[in-house]
Amino acid sequence: MKICNEDKLLAELLRLVPVSLDQPLGPGDDCAATRSPKRGQLLLLKTDCVAEGVHFLRSDDPSRVGWKALCRPLSDIAAMGGVPQQALITFFSPPDLDAGYWKKFYRGLGKAARRFGVTIAGGEMSRQPSGIAVSITLTGIVPEMQLLQRSGGRPGDQLFITGRLGGSIAGHHLDFVPRLAEGRWLAETFRPSAMMDISDGLGADLPRLARASGCGFTVNLADIPCRRGSSIDQALSDGEDYELLFSLSPKKAIGISERWADVFPKTPLTCIGSLTRSQDPPSGWPGGWDHFKEFDT
Amino acid sequence: MKICNEDKLLAELLRLVPVSLDQPLGPGDDCAATRSPKRGQLLLLKTDCVAEGVHFLRSDDPSRVGWKALCRPLSDIAAMGGVPQQALITFFSPPDLDAGYWKKFYRGLGKAARRFGVTIAGGEMSRQPSGIAVSITLTGIVPEMQLLQRSGGRPGDQLFITGRLGGSIAGHHLDFVPRLAEGRWLAETFRPSAMMDISDGLGADLPRLARASGCGFTVNLADIPCRRGSSIDQALSDGEDYELLFSLSPKKAIGISERWADVFPKTPLTCIGSLTRSQDPPSGWPGGWDHFKEFDT
Repeated sequence: MKICNEDKLLAELLRLVPVSLDQPLGPGDDCAATRSPKRGQLLLLKTDCVAEGVHFLRSDDPSRVGWKALCRPLSDIAAMGGVPQQALITFFSPPDLDAGYWKKFYRGLGKAARRFGVTIAGGEMSRQPSGIAVSITLTGIVPEMQLLQRSGGRPGDQLFITGRLGGSIAGHHLDFVPRLAEGRWLAETFRPSAMMDISDGLGADLPRLARASGCGFTVNLADIPCRRGSSIDQALSDGEDYELLFSLSPKKAIGISERWADVFPKTPLTCIGSLTRSQDPPSGWPGGWDHFKEFDT
Repeated sequence: MKICNEDKLLAELLRLVPVSLDQPLGPGDDCAATRSPKRGQLLLLKTDCVAEGVHFLRSDDPSRVGWKALCRPLSDIAAMGGVPQQALITFFSPPDLDAGYWKKFYRGLGKAARRFGVTIAGGEMSRQPSGIAVSITLTGIVPEMQLLQRSGGRPGDQLFITGRLGGSIAGHHLDFVPRLAEGRWLAETFRPSAMMDISDGLGADLPRLARASGCGFTVNLADIPCRRGSSIDQALSDGEDYELLFSLSPKKAIGISERWADVFPKTPLTCIGSLTRSQDPPSGWPGGWDHFKEFDT
């Protein structure tokens, strides 16, 4: 069945996801309208996207692509220590695409929305001549005192990562679980000095955290936890890990491994190095994934 | 110059637009963070998009496309009676596109942002195999008691539209000025029973307002103000007018034309008909622009 009518398709798709009914205004008007977060809470805003041929293939199960599309910005909310709230979904659809594709996509997206307490507040659709692309905007809240930024790291802080890195393309990039529980727990208990999620690979993302903090870094490559079958190179450069990278003062770092293992026994937490005063990356440090690097002139 | 480095390009582009500096956290971290609206104000959320070949052509001036990309969701904020606040920009770029394209695009977008008081709070970029597409998310605020929805119209309410309709493709679709001042003024003074912006053409959008209000409608076609060179058919079906459509109780409707002419002397305001009890559209009522209608089976 080809897509015949925009309003009808959107109405059908909205039946497959949890919508923002408790708000003054959910999908269907010119804008969504929502009550403000409580006093002392900040509103988080994130926009992210997936494009066919870059983040997924036409042959991938659309429901897994829908899961991934929402879980990517969820990973960013996690990296701020936040709690996700509402999503707005914009999709670009080639004219020859069957409407069934979007129903499967919304089923997977709805599964992620229900699991992580997100409601759908609105969206937009457009044709485009070729290729599927989706942009998702996500709001979240975080107590103002618990906002975790990239920029708070200090020389001497220890660097930690959750989970294992590399080889995401074998499947993890479509099925990963954003580290929301872990991010919230860290914000409430250990309050890392800096935190971000690893989406472009540790090779690209660690220098970003260090630069934002006005630091350099040193890493013991042998300590980097690789996903089964992945080399250190892949762990640094593949990208799409969606793990958390954070820095802790040496004092706080002493106690975390034991507490972590109690609360998240299935998820490794690894100290891989530390922030330094020198702002140069270690020699030979590889870059991670850059959307445009292959087009360097 | 081809796009070589994502971080560098984003930094360059952000120099061309007003960014959210007064917020706790602007572009550059995993999410943007913003203080909540004041008590009694609602937060508006809108996402919208432009795709090459649908909303613009590769040969169009990129700065006009950037202007349009931001002004489209601004028109939706206007339709709620709101004041725009922050934007997040996601763009999909084909690999052969020159970085200069995005600089021109951001210049046009920045011009609109400055004119309408919007700051850029973040964004994302991705390659896609072909075609340029941009999705923009915009926040706004509106006093809770002044939120203008599509759903409040009642039988007997008079229907008004701002400006003239039709023939947008000749240039208006790239240069239009969103009706923010008009929307705010209406929300503060006449408080329309229902309001929306006309983006898919009056033919498609008026039935949406009527349906949301549980009404039908009657329109005197001869009263519809057409843009110079446009027929009634074009005024109903071309789309991309970005004018405001609203309903007013008969009592309020008596006084509006005179007051309007004082405040907005250059913008026509026209009463085109009224909402009715019957929920069927008038026979022969044309549809407007539907992104997928040409693919009907």
